[in-house]
Amino acid sequence: MANADAAKKAAGVRAVDFIENGMKVGLGTGSTAYWSIMEIGARVKQGLQVSAIATSIQSEELAREQHIPLITFSQFDYLDVDIDGADEVDGQLQLIKGGGGALLREKIIASASRRFVVVADEHKFVPQLGAFPLPVEVTPFGWEYTFRQLTAMSGRPKLRQKDGKTFITDNGNYIADCSFGAIKNPRSLEALLNAIPGVVENGLFVDRAHTLVLGYADGTTKVMNKI
Amino acid sequence: MANADAAKKAAGVRAVDFIENGMKVGLGTGSTAYWSIMEIGARVKQGLQVSAIATSIQSEELAREQHIPLITFSQFDYLDVDIDGADEVDGQLQLIKGGGGALLREKIIASASRRFVVVADEHKFVPQLGAFPLPVEVTPFGWEYTFRQLTAMSGRPKLRQKDGKTFITDNGNYIADCSFGAIKNPRSLEALLNAIPGVVENGLFVDRAHTLVLGYADGTTKVMNKI
Repeated sequence: MANADAAKKAAGVRAVDFIENGMKVGLGTGSTAYWSIMEIGARVKQGLQVSAIATSIQSEELAREQHIPLITFSQFDYLDVDIDGADEVDGQLQLIKGGGGALLREKIIASASRRFVVVADEHKFVPQLGAFPLPVEVTPFGWEYTFRQLTAMSGRPKLRQKDGKTFITDNGNYIADCSFGAIKNPRSLEALLNAIPGVVENGLFVDRAHTLVLGYADGTTKVMNKI
Repeated sequence: MANADAAKKAAGVRAVDFIENGMKVGLGTGSTAYWSIMEIGARVKQGLQVSAIATSIQSEELAREQHIPLITFSQFDYLDVDIDGADEVDGQLQLIKGGGGALLREKIIASASRRFVVVADEHKFVPQLGAFPLPVEVTPFGWEYTFRQLTAMSGRPKLRQKDGKTFITDNGNYIADCSFGAIKNPRSLEALLNAIPGVVENGLFVDRAHTLVLGYADGTTKVMNKI
């Protein structure tokens, strides 16, 4: 196993310790959350009772393969734990997410969770957010105008492509990958972006994470809690 | 013609005076904006040159019938004038819109316009916003949770129905018709609603209108500009 994979697996597996019997769980999306879903599946096989909801169609399919019981939003008021990855995380547990394109569903599920556990390999931990392009989900209607507004904010938006076509989110929207440079005030940028009429959501997750599980290449982990 | 229709027609027709030759124009949605589109069509027949973009599929079809040349967002940087209705408008020209379900497109087009002219009959003019239910556009994914958040904000959300089915917007979303009571601070409520992850947009239009054309049952109009 490559070192990066070992770090991701270590974080993904360790985070599952926060899940107790009977809990309602959010399942994240991406290469680290993958290991959490696999580990939950293994523990369900051993008798762990949970019910889960996934942040993407991809993770929902993986959960189904792992025989993890799935629920819908009509079946719960809140989730106990959500385990999901991040593209960048800082010392205040503020995040950039959405590299995989599932940011809207991820944010809804994080928001519905009493405890949001972020899993990441050590390289995602940064002193300041902003090196990773910030994904902004925009409506197809008027996207050109919305991009001009992002440009006016110095966001240098790029329309995300996949396999030579415009990438479409699970919600039927486009992604603008933006480069704002170092993000000094994530809270203010998150609100400014959400105030643009064509912006559905953005990848800044401010004051949402409660716990961070960092994985290292040697297979060890470090757990940090929001102060 | 019924009195309410006369008032709507008077406002809708009067607002078209703000359109000059060569302008790029936003076309609103609803029973008052209808009259503006009809009047623009009549003037195009008489030689007025404009290009237009519509806030709904319905208005786009009407514009096509009226032979108004249509453009897309890739063909302009901004619009000169947008003429659209409102469900409520106060003395500061703050609005509630979205009774027709087109609020997202309406807000994008208002935002792209140098001058946003609101057309309304006299009964839409209120001392304080909030008697008309505030439409909030929400993503189908997680809508039950989003509704619980609106409920926690005392918004008493109702899922909009049409012909016995859940109403779907042009963008594939649901509408929560909310009752917050008298809205004392529209600016703050608009931002709070947009900060909810499942909320795409809401019907509060704060500091977006430049001009209000009010129509009266006797066929007269009154024009007010934002101070």
